[in-house]
Amino acid sequence: MAAVALVQGASRGLGLEFCKQILLNKSPACVIATCRNPENAVELLNLAAQHPGKVTVLKLDVNREDDISSAAEKVKRSFGTLDLIINSSAMLHPSGKGETSLRDVSAQGVISTLTTNTVGPLVVAKYFAPLLQKGAGLFGQQPPEKAKQHSGIIVNMTAKVGSIGDNALGGWYSYRMSKAALNMATRNLSIELGRSRLRVVCVSMHPGTVDTELSRPYHRNMPKERLFSTQHSVHCLLGIIDTLNIDKTGKAYNWDGSELPW
Amino acid sequence: MAAVALVQGASRGLGLEFCKQILLNKSPACVIATCRNPENAVELLNLAAQHPGKVTVLKLDVNREDDISSAAEKVKRSFGTLDLIINSSAMLHPSGKGETSLRDVSAQGVISTLTTNTVGPLVVAKYFAPLLQKGAGLFGQQPPEKAKQHSGIIVNMTAKVGSIGDNALGGWYSYRMSKAALNMATRNLSIELGRSRLRVVCVSMHPGTVDTELSRPYHRNMPKERLFSTQHSVHCLLGIIDTLNIDKTGKAYNWDGSELPW
Repeated sequence: MAAVALVQGASRGLGLEFCKQILLNKSPACVIATCRNPENAVELLNLAAQHPGKVTVLKLDVNREDDISSAAEKVKRSFGTLDLIINSSAMLHPSGKGETSLRDVSAQGVISTLTTNTVGPLVVAKYFAPLLQKGAGLFGQQPPEKAKQHSGIIVNMTAKVGSIGDNALGGWYSYRMSKAALNMATRNLSIELGRSRLRVVCVSMHPGTVDTELSRPYHRNMPKERLFSTQHSVHCLLGIIDTLNIDKTGKAYNWDGSELPW
Repeated sequence: MAAVALVQGASRGLGLEFCKQILLNKSPACVIATCRNPENAVELLNLAAQHPGKVTVLKLDVNREDDISSAAEKVKRSFGTLDLIINSSAMLHPSGKGETSLRDVSAQGVISTLTTNTVGPLVVAKYFAPLLQKGAGLFGQQPPEKAKQHSGIIVNMTAKVGSIGDNALGGWYSYRMSKAALNMATRNLSIELGRSRLRVVCVSMHPGTVDTELSRPYHRNMPKERLFSTQHSVHCLLGIIDTLNIDKTGKAYNWDGSELPW
């Protein structure tokens, strides 16, 4: 049986890399790759061409509930089941720059960031969770006891700067708040979806400091050895996903597998 | 010198009670009481009539950045300074009911709740923080060392259900997420406003389980001794505010003064 993974925000960065590595390392696997504008997602379309019949590219704008629900309908008709969802899309701020002080904060900027980074992943979970509950649990580590086995996994990409307890620097109001609220969503999802007979594991994950479009402007002064490639980061994160089970649900994990404080 | 306190969301519930108790216990004090519709705020207008010259009622819809900025302009012109802000307004969900499961989650419901409960208080802090930096520090406890003294205090009303680490029950997605994100805002504000020479203390506070319109539908099965009156809750919270100083900034406090986990 082929594992089925859905990567939300798959046109570039970590999302695109998740698609690549799942196809290579989890064979046979099917990947459903969603993004706002499939027609412009050149790298993703190339990847799909390299893996005929293995990649389904779907239009999904995480800011539109109707888009999410109709994508879920399509996946339900074509696959009927899911083993893994990775909520990967995120923005730093509509301006492209995180707020350095209160003066930069605008209601509209915070609301846009929360809508994309927080509300989007939660609404994706809402519409796709029933498919995860029908999953075969082909990602993660299944314990021998049937009652403790899971049917699917949700990974919300969080960030260390979304940890309230770890926050010693301030700034980046919108982004930090969006990831803190997403961590609460993770926690709530883990409780609700961990309760039923068809159990779904839900965790937040921090990818490390990765060289992506979102964060590139901030890396000028960073020593190279601390800056991860998307390849390295996703390799680490898939390693953690391989070890997930229901006992590890409802937590936030760093790229090295250690637990992050809320 | 009279202490000046601004209570945002003062037409009813905890906000109204904060106005009453500050006027009684912190005499001489001026209270700036803001709410969406002053013309309908009968109890607040009565309170103002009972304390001539002590209460300024201002229209402020926390969902409108222009409303917040023009209210701040008025306060600047009339008072020039502030010692305390209490961000009290909040909603459970636009429907009046917290989500009991994912099925009840809607993007619009989460966004509305985040806008009122999270973005509103942050934008209030943005426009009023400069007035707090001109405050005389007449709330809280001032240490003898001048360098450790604060000029003002921001209190964001959070809720225990907004603690991610404490969340064992799930549900109430919108409300929980809004308060977790508000706690991040508190933390960020405490860092930015604790750094400058004119220091402002910023904390989150949980009022206990209080008999207000927001929570009343959920109290039917609660033993009476665990349900606080607004009077009791605000009495406890003002007691904590009396002990605040810059060493206590950036944290979330329970009604009994204990620290809440993030």
